[in-house]
Amino acid sequence: MKLEIQAALEYFFPMPSDVLLQLEAAIIPEQTVESAHIAISPTDHFARVQGHDTIGERIWLRVQGQLSVDYTATVEINRLCGDISALSAVPPHLLPGETVEYLLPSRYCPSDQLLNFAEAQFGGTAGGARVAAICDWIKTHFAYMPGASNAATGALETFVMRQGVCRDFAHVMITLVRASAIPARFVSVYAPHVEPQDFHAVAEVFLGGVWHLVDATGMATSEEMAKIGVGRDAADTSFLTSYGQSQLNRQAVTVRSV
Amino acid sequence: MKLEIQAALEYFFPMPSDVLLQLEAAIIPEQTVESAHIAISPTDHFARVQGHDTIGERIWLRVQGQLSVDYTATVEINRLCGDISALSAVPPHLLPGETVEYLLPSRYCPSDQLLNFAEAQFGGTAGGARVAAICDWIKTHFAYMPGASNAATGALETFVMRQGVCRDFAHVMITLVRASAIPARFVSVYAPHVEPQDFHAVAEVFLGGVWHLVDATGMATSEEMAKIGVGRDAADTSFLTSYGQSQLNRQAVTVRSV
Amino acid sequence: MKLEIQAALEYFFPMPSDVLLQLEAAIIPEQTVESAHIAISPTDHFARVQGHDTIGERIWLRVQGQLSVDYTATVEINRLCGDISALSAVPPHLLPGETVEYLLPSRYCPSDQLLNFAEAQFGGTAGGARVAAICDWIKTHFAYMPGASNAATGALETFVMRQGVCRDFAHVMITLVRASAIPARFVSVYAPHVEPQDFHAVAEVFLGGVWHLVDATGMATSEEMAKIGVGRDAADTSFLTSYGQSQLNRQAVTVRSV
Amino acid sequence: MKLEIQAALEYFFPMPSDVLLQLEAAIIPEQTVESAHIAISPTDHFARVQGHDTIGERIWLRVQGQLSVDYTATVEINRLCGDISALSAVPPHLLPGETVEYLLPSRYCPSDQLLNFAEAQFGGTAGGARVAAICDWIKTHFAYMPGASNAATGALETFVMRQGVCRDFAHVMITLVRASAIPARFVSVYAPHVEPQDFHAVAEVFLGGVWHLVDATGMATSEEMAKIGVGRDAADTSFLTSYGQSQLNRQAVTVRSV
Repeated sequence: MKLEIQAALEYFFPMPSDVLLQLEAAIIPEQTVESAHIAISPTDHFARVQGHDTIGERIWLRVQGQLSVDYTATVEINRLCGDISALSAVPPHLLPGETVEYLLPSRYCPSDQLLNFAEAQFGGTAGGARVAAICDWIKTHFAYMPGASNAATGALETFVMRQGVCRDFAHVMITLVRASAIPARFVSVYAPHVEPQDFHAVAEVFLGGVWHLVDATGMATSEEMAKIGVGRDAADTSFLTSYGQSQLNRQAVTVRSV
Repeated sequence: MKLEIQAALEYFFPMPSDVLLQLEAAIIPEQTVESAHIAISPTDHFARVQGHDTIGERIWLRVQGQLSVDYTATVEINRLCGDISALSAVPPHLLPGETVEYLLPSRYCPSDQLLNFAEAQFGGTAGGARVAAICDWIKTHFAYMPGASNAATGALETFVMRQGVCRDFAHVMITLVRASAIPARFVSVYAPHVEPQDFHAVAEVFLGGVWHLVDATGMATSEEMAKIGVGRDAADTSFLTSYGQSQLNRQAVTVRSV
Repeated sequence: MKLEIQAALEYFFPMPSDVLLQLEAAIIPEQTVESAHIAISPTDHFARVQGHDTIGERIWLRVQGQLSVDYTATVEINRLCGDISALSAVPPHLLPGETVEYLLPSRYCPSDQLLNFAEAQFGGTAGGARVAAICDWIKTHFAYMPGASNAATGALETFVMRQGVCRDFAHVMITLVRASAIPARFVSVYAPHVEPQDFHAVAEVFLGGVWHLVDATGMATSEEMAKIGVGRDAADTSFLTSYGQSQLNRQAVTVRSV
Repeated sequence: MKLEIQAALEYFFPMPSDVLLQLEAAIIPEQTVESAHIAISPTDHFARVQGHDTIGERIWLRVQGQLSVDYTATVEINRLCGDISALSAVPPHLLPGETVEYLLPSRYCPSDQLLNFAEAQFGGTAGGARVAAICDWIKTHFAYMPGASNAATGALETFVMRQGVCRDFAHVMITLVRASAIPARFVSVYAPHVEPQDFHAVAEVFLGGVWHLVDATGMATSEEMAKIGVGRDAADTSFLTSYGQSQLNRQAVTVRSV
């Protein structure tokens, strides 16, 4: 599967501001970035640093006034995808050290609070079957509702309110998977069938010793997502974080499978 | 400064449980572990993995029934300590990639919620002077009160309640420093003058390109702390995390400077 | 059904403090207080005021040092009790004005946050059948767990954690009933089969134009509860609220059915 | 001071809905409603019930489709206003029973959480001087920022975020006054100099045995407010609460002093 990606951002910064961007498809074995181009309006500073867990890159900018970012890329997805429900979880005591952070609670995924619920609701299942049961449960019980949540909304609020957007669905998914003693992380992606077209976010779970993408909104499948970056939750994978006031003037994302 | 450390834990696990331990002084340049011994009662599994950010080690155990852990060590602290208030912050756009996670909100340190307060209260200061002002403000406005908080308490609850223990003081410190666009992380340590004697927790801030320990409780100074591990907040540095029911029977920590 | 009630409190107030007591069985038509005696150690001030919604009485005290309260009473319960599941709800637009406050969110019962859940989970039922379904759901999904909650715990935390004590069960019950557009209030009571023996708390719901007691813990039935006071939630019905530091030295409650 | 008030609402209800309105100036001694007219588009049901604490009236409607409400009134304000800072608080143990509910925590005003802060920040003051100090502190430390809060925002979130609208300012005011053991309630009002013109909300505090209006936003003075209703917080005084989906199409308020 090949994806053609276009993303455009326009922001205005009234004061000199430090800005952290992360919106380029990551260069990792499971996807081949065949071509990519990023055009950023003049800034006072531009530096690339590694993304979280060394997946993808972030760009530090120093900018005042108008900022426009245009990104285009063609990405071939080589990811092997299969039915996760038959996979086993790695018992925690055999987990590699670098997966441990994804087992622990984070800003938007306080998994320590949902241990009882996870056990009561999904206690009869384990491993991939449990992840699949959690995903089905979210699809059945949560409404996709733009505007119902905001940047401060975490998984517990979403668990209570039963509505949100892709970010919120991923947060609840990650929280319940971690509460099941299975590592789970947040992945920002490009995917073609997201409605309305925008940056997309999904969960990734560690089963059988490998990470597997899972979209609790049902809008994207694993073989058609181009990964941008990973993290513990949305706090780590925002496409733009600014230190100082900012105003968003335009944001447009188009992803086509070709 | 040399520290003699003794720590003893006794737990009971009614069911087979995965247990993650992190209580050994880390082997890092700023402290020399002259001798160390850890004795753990028989377990079904024992594996060492790296700690967060490759500082220190965690131990995965598989255990049922009684677990006793006895740790003794002698650690020479070589850390260079000075007055942090004269140090400059690294502007965000010049920060190394591996410090970025400590700039972002985490489970117990949702720094995105205290941006306005940090700017209003400490806006006239920058860099080390700002960190010092935050530390002084916490010392003045918060009461050290064992029992006033629990494992679920985060920095915002502590900010509202104005009381807590070392963990809570460190969380508020970290949250306000991150809200000031300076990386800050949580460090679990051994320190000799902690009252009552126990595991201790402090903040570490990134100033002048180097990490500096800061204890908002005022109980420990930088030159007399032996680091165990670091993380975004207490979620990453617990001395014992168990998957499954557990019962704490004994916990004793003694730290002497010799 | 007749109840013999004994309650004893001993507190210590290091400074002169205002104290609000509410622990006497209310004198209301549905229960006959055949005899009652309250003995309070000497205080600087003693005044009775009406309880919330004019049910029962509160006592204002001004006290320093030791406070002991001994209350004994014999109460005959005349309450008509039946199966609530066949009762109809009063449509909101026909509700009497004085029930409206029990339809609205309160400190521990933020019913505005559980509207979606209530509709999704209990949408097929109405009126008393809905109240019964909510009560059954709580009995099935929540664990009675002393120590799992504290004075700050509200219904949403309990909804997430799935555990608590009578107060928490009543809060979840009330929140879900209000989210179903049926008035619900919190009632502090004496009841004989509460384990361990203590003050007890239940919900009261407005069905068919009358208030009906419902105990989601299953420990007490409507015909064997002596009401103390009502309110929107636990904030309104505490047996002792003090302005100033206090120390609880003894609390003993005994209720026998005779 | 005489006020000319105009308020117009247009809503759409896709399904038959129960609607609770409260937007008429209350008929109470401190203000004379010289003339008033309310025009409501045809509804299936219309019933008046008393407002909270018997101040003002609420209207229950049953409506499907379009709802338009037009209200005009001329109100003469007779309220005696003076400097509150010289007034004494009534000691809690002397408070009348009907004021007790305004001393207790509520949905948006969890005063039990700010006791330490209130004592630390305002401990040197008492009574009216304390209320004035709280009001000044809010004016100095909080930014009036439409859009920064929503219907779920309570006083603690506002205390942390340091920004909000009139409703949020009133919630913080009430919470800190209650945490100072002085009754405080929420009042919805019409006032002429509110920018932008809209329904307005302020606090009312019980000093010297009488209720006194206080506007922490500084936009309205006591002698130029027409009271609509009172309650523990915004939950009790919403101008429109609907049970069922609703869509707001128009809301216009004009208040002129003549």
